[in-house]
Amino acid sequence: MIPAGQSLIGFSTGAPGGAVFRAFDPARAADLEPVFHSVSVVELERAVQLAATAAPAWAKLTGAARNRFLRLIADKLDRHAAVLAEKAVQETGLPLARCTGEVARTSGQLRLYGEAAERGDWLDARIETAQPDRKPLPKPDHRSMLRPLGPVVVFGSSNFPFAYSVAGGDTASAFAAGCPVIVKAHPAHPGTGELVGRLVVEAVKECGLPEGSFALLFDAGFEVGQALVRHPLVKAVGFTGSLKGGRALVDLAAARPEPIPVYAEMGSINPFFILPGALAERAAALVDGLHASATVGVGQFCTNPGLIVLQRSAAAEKFVKDLAAKLTATPEAAMLTPGIRKAFVGNTAARTQQPGVTVIAQGKTAMACGAAPVWFETEARTFLGNPGLSSEIFGPSSLVVWCRDRAELLDVARQLEGSLTATLHAGASEAAEQGELIDLLSAKAGRLILNGYPTGLEVSQAIVHAGPYPATSDGGRSTSVGTRALVRWTRLICYQGFPDALLPPELQNANPLGALRMVNGQFTRAAV
Amino acid sequence: MIPAGQSLIGFSTGAPGGAVFRAFDPARAADLEPVFHSVSVVELERAVQLAATAAPAWAKLTGAARNRFLRLIADKLDRHAAVLAEKAVQETGLPLARCTGEVARTSGQLRLYGEAAERGDWLDARIETAQPDRKPLPKPDHRSMLRPLGPVVVFGSSNFPFAYSVAGGDTASAFAAGCPVIVKAHPAHPGTGELVGRLVVEAVKECGLPEGSFALLFDAGFEVGQALVRHPLVKAVGFTGSLKGGRALVDLAAARPEPIPVYAEMGSINPFFILPGALAERAAALVDGLHASATVGVGQFCTNPGLIVLQRSAAAEKFVKDLAAKLTATPEAAMLTPGIRKAFVGNTAARTQQPGVTVIAQGKTAMACGAAPVWFETEARTFLGNPGLSSEIFGPSSLVVWCRDRAELLDVARQLEGSLTATLHAGASEAAEQGELIDLLSAKAGRLILNGYPTGLEVSQAIVHAGPYPATSDGGRSTSVGTRALVRWTRLICYQGFPDALLPPELQNANPLGALRMVNGQFTRAAV
Repeated sequence: MIPAGQSLIGFSTGAPGGAVFRAFDPARAADLEPVFHSVSVVELERAVQLAATAAPAWAKLTGAARNRFLRLIADKLDRHAAVLAEKAVQETGLPLARCTGEVARTSGQLRLYGEAAERGDWLDARIETAQPDRKPLPKPDHRSMLRPLGPVVVFGSSNFPFAYSVAGGDTASAFAAGCPVIVKAHPAHPGTGELVGRLVVEAVKECGLPEGSFALLFDAGFEVGQALVRHPLVKAVGFTGSLKGGRALVDLAAARPEPIPVYAEMGSINPFFILPGALAERAAALVDGLHASATVGVGQFCTNPGLIVLQRSAAAEKFVKDLAAKLTATPEAAMLTPGIRKAFVGNTAARTQQPGVTVIAQGKTAMACGAAPVWFETEARTFLGNPGLSSEIFGPSSLVVWCRDRAELLDVARQLEGSLTATLHAGASEAAEQGELIDLLSAKAGRLILNGYPTGLEVSQAIVHAGPYPATSDGGRSTSVGTRALVRWTRLICYQGFPDALLPPELQNANPLGALRMVNGQFTRAAV
Repeated sequence: MIPAGQSLIGFSTGAPGGAVFRAFDPARAADLEPVFHSVSVVELERAVQLAATAAPAWAKLTGAARNRFLRLIADKLDRHAAVLAEKAVQETGLPLARCTGEVARTSGQLRLYGEAAERGDWLDARIETAQPDRKPLPKPDHRSMLRPLGPVVVFGSSNFPFAYSVAGGDTASAFAAGCPVIVKAHPAHPGTGELVGRLVVEAVKECGLPEGSFALLFDAGFEVGQALVRHPLVKAVGFTGSLKGGRALVDLAAARPEPIPVYAEMGSINPFFILPGALAERAAALVDGLHASATVGVGQFCTNPGLIVLQRSAAAEKFVKDLAAKLTATPEAAMLTPGIRKAFVGNTAARTQQPGVTVIAQGKTAMACGAAPVWFETEARTFLGNPGLSSEIFGPSSLVVWCRDRAELLDVARQLEGSLTATLHAGASEAAEQGELIDLLSAKAGRLILNGYPTGLEVSQAIVHAGPYPATSDGGRSTSVGTRALVRWTRLICYQGFPDALLPPELQNANPLGALRMVNGQFTRAAV
């Protein structure tokens, strides 16, 4: 499997003609073959029209059919994991083990969402049977459930070439919910994207699904993405990336004649609070744990702990000193793209200039696209007076905030913006007294972690990957990871007075799928 | 109980000083006592600060405590139903029976949502227990559920002085979800609003809830509403009203530094399709049923059937002729406000001037604020070529669209904008053949009605009151009526590695509330 540089528009490929770009190997600082061709306006229109034509058929696919399709994609990813991971290593500079692991996570995610689709419990099916004799007015039969929205546009992310890209979480959950998907490929790993995209097209064909089920569009710039978000036939958007990019798409969608939802996962500083008891019990383990969490993937994770908050003490100072030494000794590694590396260098240099901010660790770099940890410290009162210090620096850089006392630590918690995660490390006897701090943090993050680390996200039924703005564009009302992600691509429909034969199977009396339903106020898998 | 014309800001009342206004009795065309005073900027700020201060306490209230509070409000409404209904009749011109019935609907709604809050099933609680021995990495304990957003602003509607106003559906669902509420009173029925608001404040005090649990703000103009939507401490907005008003608030909220959700229920034309078989079986009953649905409440319902679509035939022409005669003979009644009446007169006059549009029924009016049915007809090809004919005219006016054949009828369905409802009347042998039409309509409305009428909404577990834009601002992804309405005021939070004692009761091992939870992928009410 070698990428051809062509968009995938239904069962055709894009033609050359538009602007071109290449992938870049950040570890070797070298352009990669082949040239990738941006789609034309005509090709984009054809992709959207195909998706809109496929949408009614997709809305009628059974959960079992969607599960078959998702499992087939998963099987294909697993079968080609070696070649896919190799291509991703070239295009992202990430280690082979990480890329291989991410393929497995992605296929696992496809299977989990497919299984949820087939079980049908997630549809929130509700039935209230008629009461023709009710006074003063008869009660009609009402049956309602979630139904797919229609064509969904997914923007691939830079930092997850598989799990949040072409066949990643947004695509998998939109397919599972019954929506055709158009992916705008991330230009940082187009070859990986094309290879994955071709496997998806194979699966579409093998399952006998409509041509418009899936498309993968390349673009050297922003025009294609903007045109997709503006297109009247597009019904929802998934995005993982920067705050600037996400907010631009959110604003574009909000300004449409018919606004549509943009589920954007954006900036997150992921505050990490360390209390005295935790340091007393396990400072060495915390050094190792926090170092690993903050440097894995060259810090290029949305859950990277970017703000470390502690009360000043001799033990805390020793902890930070030990951590800083370990950070300084951390070997450099290539960042995902020259642009991300340039931003990292610029942002860390700018932070160095901030009054009251000191560098406490700075690793050595020699590679063209390399980065090593750059950590800072400041006093809580400086942090509280300088909103710029709350901005995420994407990459291996965090800010240690020193609090004089508990009150100042709570003030820092109060001032935080929204994050995907907030972590608290406390000693055994200390945890029970953290009610106020936990309340404060629960208003700031979608996932609260006690004595653990924010990186290493589970894909599961109970996980929440969301948070108040700016962590996610919808303020944490939905999650982009876990089986709850499916509901983002749906809307509610209620059928009043419909005979069984005209209802979707999920709402028919016999409950042919055996899904959990609310019937006259009681949850049951039984027939009506 | 007599209104004093004062806003309710926690346990205080607003002071005179700002712009003033009065309610107006549309049936008698007379101003009503007393004068109502707009809140000042300082009073508005105090209301929001009080709500923000109350929010953490509200987030910790048990479902049982919220249920007690909602039931107490409901009991108070029922106890004072006569005086409340009398005041509403004065301020809205609606008949006494309707106003009395609406009080009962509103108290029933409060009790239904309170019961849902206490049961806790709606919280989507999910637990995945730890697997410390999992390879390659241990799996942490994850527990997640919906948690309240914080202060909610509710805009009272003009056409439901109780059910969608001060203690109406948005307020009840926000309280049930655990959020303090600030109501911007609708200026058309401020006295009714104040009386209801005082009962809510009584209930706040009797339940020992924080002062910021509730506020009711008056304003002669738009400034207070806009300031509330812009306020950084406000976390969500509920609105029922016009497309223009709703969209303005949606745009305002989207442009905030931190965007917040505005759940706006706006314009809806509610298409009503009548197939030949239905006319053959029950034309006379359809004349009566459609007449009643289209004229109840002087047509001032968001589910009013505004577009009647049929294929031309002798039977259909006779049906429309009979219906038109009944409409023309319908006595006038007062509209809610002079402004609504003026818009109705202007909009119907403008429609009369549209090429290819003919008046088929026009009732007689003599009252200053009165309106009687004004119905129009046009050919499908005229309708398809004139987007202005798809606009809702609020009040007793509908447009009959004549289709030459089945294909044209499907074209009309295809061109529809989003609505709250879509109704289909079919004969016994005809219904089974409507798959394509039902598919088309299911993309256009949140509730599909077979052989019934869109007005007369049930407040229940299964109901959906929502629809694609412009029916609702979020495209029908949530509902403003029914127990699903609670989720609008929440976001997801996940707790990782928390000991039982630090978790909300809903996520503790013992399941003290006995709520339905997903535990390791299985739904159960059992303890972990």
